[in-house]
Amino acid sequence: MTSQSEMTNYLHAFVEGMISNGVVQAVISPGSRSTPLALLLHRQEKIETFIEVDERSAAFFALGLSKTSGKPVVLLCTSGTAAANYYPAVCEAYASHIPLLVLTTDRPHELRQVGAPQAMDQFHLFQGHVKLFIEMAIPEGSKTMLDYSYWQGMRATDTACQTPKGPIHLNFPLREPLLPDLTHPMLAEKTTEVIVGKKQLSESQLMMCANAWQGKKGVLVVGGSHTPEEAGLFIELAETLNWPIISDPLANITSNSKTSPLIMSCADLFIQEVDMNHRPEVVVRFGMLPISKNTMFWLQSLNEDETMIYFIDETGEWQDQLKQVQTAIQVEEQTFVQMLLNKIKVQTSVSWRNQWINWQKATEQLLKEFSEMNTLNETSASVLVHEKMAEDGQLFVSNSNAIRFLDRFASAENNVYQLFGNRGINGIDGIVSTALGMCAINPDRQNILLIGDLAMYHDMNGLLLAKRYKLPLTIVLLNNNGGGIFSFLSQRQLETDDFEPIFGTPIDLDFSLVAQLYDAEYVKAVSLEQLDCLLEKTKKQPKFQLIEVVGDRQDNVLLYEKVVKSLREIFGIDYGK
Amino acid sequence: MTSQSEMTNYLHAFVEGMISNGVVQAVISPGSRSTPLALLLHRQEKIETFIEVDERSAAFFALGLSKTSGKPVVLLCTSGTAAANYYPAVCEAYASHIPLLVLTTDRPHELRQVGAPQAMDQFHLFQGHVKLFIEMAIPEGSKTMLDYSYWQGMRATDTACQTPKGPIHLNFPLREPLLPDLTHPMLAEKTTEVIVGKKQLSESQLMMCANAWQGKKGVLVVGGSHTPEEAGLFIELAETLNWPIISDPLANITSNSKTSPLIMSCADLFIQEVDMNHRPEVVVRFGMLPISKNTMFWLQSLNEDETMIYFIDETGEWQDQLKQVQTAIQVEEQTFVQMLLNKIKVQTSVSWRNQWINWQKATEQLLKEFSEMNTLNETSASVLVHEKMAEDGQLFVSNSNAIRFLDRFASAENNVYQLFGNRGINGIDGIVSTALGMCAINPDRQNILLIGDLAMYHDMNGLLLAKRYKLPLTIVLLNNNGGGIFSFLSQRQLETDDFEPIFGTPIDLDFSLVAQLYDAEYVKAVSLEQLDCLLEKTKKQPKFQLIEVVGDRQDNVLLYEKVVKSLREIFGIDYGK
Repeated sequence: MTSQSEMTNYLHAFVEGMISNGVVQAVISPGSRSTPLALLLHRQEKIETFIEVDERSAAFFALGLSKTSGKPVVLLCTSGTAAANYYPAVCEAYASHIPLLVLTTDRPHELRQVGAPQAMDQFHLFQGHVKLFIEMAIPEGSKTMLDYSYWQGMRATDTACQTPKGPIHLNFPLREPLLPDLTHPMLAEKTTEVIVGKKQLSESQLMMCANAWQGKKGVLVVGGSHTPEEAGLFIELAETLNWPIISDPLANITSNSKTSPLIMSCADLFIQEVDMNHRPEVVVRFGMLPISKNTMFWLQSLNEDETMIYFIDETGEWQDQLKQVQTAIQVEEQTFVQMLLNKIKVQTSVSWRNQWINWQKATEQLLKEFSEMNTLNETSASVLVHEKMAEDGQLFVSNSNAIRFLDRFASAENNVYQLFGNRGINGIDGIVSTALGMCAINPDRQNILLIGDLAMYHDMNGLLLAKRYKLPLTIVLLNNNGGGIFSFLSQRQLETDDFEPIFGTPIDLDFSLVAQLYDAEYVKAVSLEQLDCLLEKTKKQPKFQLIEVVGDRQDNVLLYEKVVKSLREIFGIDYGK
Repeated sequence: MTSQSEMTNYLHAFVEGMISNGVVQAVISPGSRSTPLALLLHRQEKIETFIEVDERSAAFFALGLSKTSGKPVVLLCTSGTAAANYYPAVCEAYASHIPLLVLTTDRPHELRQVGAPQAMDQFHLFQGHVKLFIEMAIPEGSKTMLDYSYWQGMRATDTACQTPKGPIHLNFPLREPLLPDLTHPMLAEKTTEVIVGKKQLSESQLMMCANAWQGKKGVLVVGGSHTPEEAGLFIELAETLNWPIISDPLANITSNSKTSPLIMSCADLFIQEVDMNHRPEVVVRFGMLPISKNTMFWLQSLNEDETMIYFIDETGEWQDQLKQVQTAIQVEEQTFVQMLLNKIKVQTSVSWRNQWINWQKATEQLLKEFSEMNTLNETSASVLVHEKMAEDGQLFVSNSNAIRFLDRFASAENNVYQLFGNRGINGIDGIVSTALGMCAINPDRQNILLIGDLAMYHDMNGLLLAKRYKLPLTIVLLNNNGGGIFSFLSQRQLETDDFEPIFGTPIDLDFSLVAQLYDAEYVKAVSLEQLDCLLEKTKKQPKFQLIEVVGDRQDNVLLYEKVVKSLREIFGIDYGK
């Protein structure tokens, strides 16, 4: 039998392997079977550990840490249903390319499928939602097995971080006694250097793109999450080509320090309303489609004979819902754009540029005139949050309505910050914990979460992390007491008797009690001025607080419809026909 | 393309198919893709629907409904991570043989793996933790496809209910528009009669058992969950054979209306302490091992040359952790016991019986003398809950410590009620929701949940179901501010700096606020007398309330150790050597 010190060395080698490839944080949920790994991670000075009892929240918190730091993060739990609670976050991590190392502990082979307590089949537990599943060997102390254990820690971490990044699941069968030998001298640490190449185009392939695009009437469409640096490159590309750029809020283009009138932050509102006799000759898409449904419908309406569609995506995942791509370019985006910028010599005509700028400006102007934007409601509160972000601030925006408010109504002017969200599968689960993960990476900055009441309720348990680790997250809660998104969808045609119980689903929770439960300060905002003042303070004094904005599901729809109606009138006169 | 009325008929046929095999309840989580099924279930008069936003709680609630009613229960959610939240309850349902029909809705084929929003691979989402996965066809209106849809609803429900029962996953690809045609006349209902045979032994096989067991010094060991009726048969068998019966609390033997001095409710405490020179000649085990670790160690200590081990288990799942079974009998337990009772003509000697009864009585007497049992602590509160149960009352007992307190300290005298728990995989997740499912089946009876603070926190969201549906559950919260179980395990040897953050994990929550949030009445119990009075009232006036008992993790261990020490003294003098 393997001794306790042999088991300890084996698991320690694994941890060292992970560290050698960049692991610096771990989120642990308590349990018995996971004891030796939990203690080794906890004792390891190079790793910061967080504890969370609810594994679902723990996993989303790890997702938020990794999303923000860009580094691989470890999750650890005991055997049984504990691991199944990780599933929602694992699915989201897989879809949005976040490198998580999901360590589950298990009964050894002789205690499987024999009715041993807290045991279930953990092989391939997360199905196709991880990049790799590894069943580790039973701990042994031989040099071969220590090398194996180190190697698995090292290569699993590297695999998680390879493009497209994603979660890896490692299952550890562990025998009793489970207490590691912490008095034993640990193995010397190893290091493994990893040098990674990038997918790049050849000179001739680059020239082909430059020649096909420059001087043409084109539109850049940027989806997915991007860092401010990446987003800056996209803006530069738009300026160099003289093309408008339509993007997802998470692309961090609207909130970038590089500004440009070519950023079409209001595209969702105007793109279906304007005169499109002059359609683009070229559309260049980066990554998945942006959130705006109107942009999707507009793309769908393009005629393939008139418009060439290019699709740049490093992952090779063919995120092409419209199935209209004519050229798919699989290349690392940043390097590609940087190299391309030097090749472009011809700008598209100013009239193409101006037309789009006029549409954007007219829409922005109209929004400013809307009186509802000067009173407190869910839409105006969302826009104000956007406007009040500090330059190094971090905003996490929830599904489903919150991100749509930002997408439609937030201006690209004078706002620099970084925006995050869970848009791999767009769930309303785990939002609070993911946002707290974001906050934990840069707790000294302004950290804000914009969220609706259903998403808040769904992951209320995550608030324990804020309480335990004193994470100074400001939560702006848009409380319309139920599922606000459905009032925008076809379900609103239903009679109230069908709509309210199944889609409206009011939950009638007093969120001031939630704040009290988790030691958050609570304020119910009663005016835009007050909210402005509260948000201003978050720039200098980050703290854990819950600011509630009471909304009305119907009002959101009415405001949206009014705006669209006015836009139709404006564009009907100025630009239409 | 399929029309809305064709889609409606197709899905309606499926619902009718489920109803034909006994579905009467459904738990729905709101979403867009699931709209037509949600509306059809909601409108269907034969089905009672519940709505819960958090799919994890929804699934455990469905588990509790089915566990209590014995009937198959439907779960319905939208696409994406929503379904992944079902996973913990699905795993538990599979392990504990609860028939759930898990309906997930999905993008149709043309919107899969193309970057469509809220889409992920839902094929075999729950891996090996369902009995069957069915990918339904895209809705069509032909007679063939309506027959197919009805047939799938009917046979999936039957499959869920076949022994061993368990969850079935059906994935429905649905195209927009998602609103069903509710004005359309529905198809006439069909019925399908299902006649089910049972695994039974032949006369000669039965005689073999009777001859092998009667007159021998034997012990019955009953694990797993059993209804009071089943439990009554086991007690009758024990009395007929003159054998002691050791059981799991969930077997409902200790809480049965049939009483017998042969019920060894204190086995966990005394079985390792008493003189075992006279070992049993026969052990007959029914189903999985009981929770008592000491019973397991005692079984393990038996010599295969001296003791014959029989294992009766209808499922054929070989829940034989000790790998010592000599004869495995795969037969439907109730029929088997009923038929066997008539075959047994010889009783084992009274001295065998009396020896066990003396051990049990001596232990019970000792417990009564313990002064700690007369003051309020977690142990005494647990015992009091057991004693105060009404005759038709329902008690749900949580993992990990709560069920152990009952197992060790609850007496078999004068207590009749039904006990439930989640002992498939023994998770601390979903306990509140499962207990509320139990309560929803018989809301007019006394319904009590005995639970620790970590399990309570883990599934706090489930309390929204109690608030929404006015479910009169009394929650007795054993609050030792952290993971009490670890103080009983080897982890307690660790230094405080390692123990408290990773295993103790205090959460410091004010549960009176939790009660307030969900409209529960709250009382902090300060004495056993007060708790007695509060519990007495639940017999006549069931209501949604939270009774908090403040405990101390260390005290639980000290009391247990004191009891064991005293037992050793008693048995050392009276029965040892």
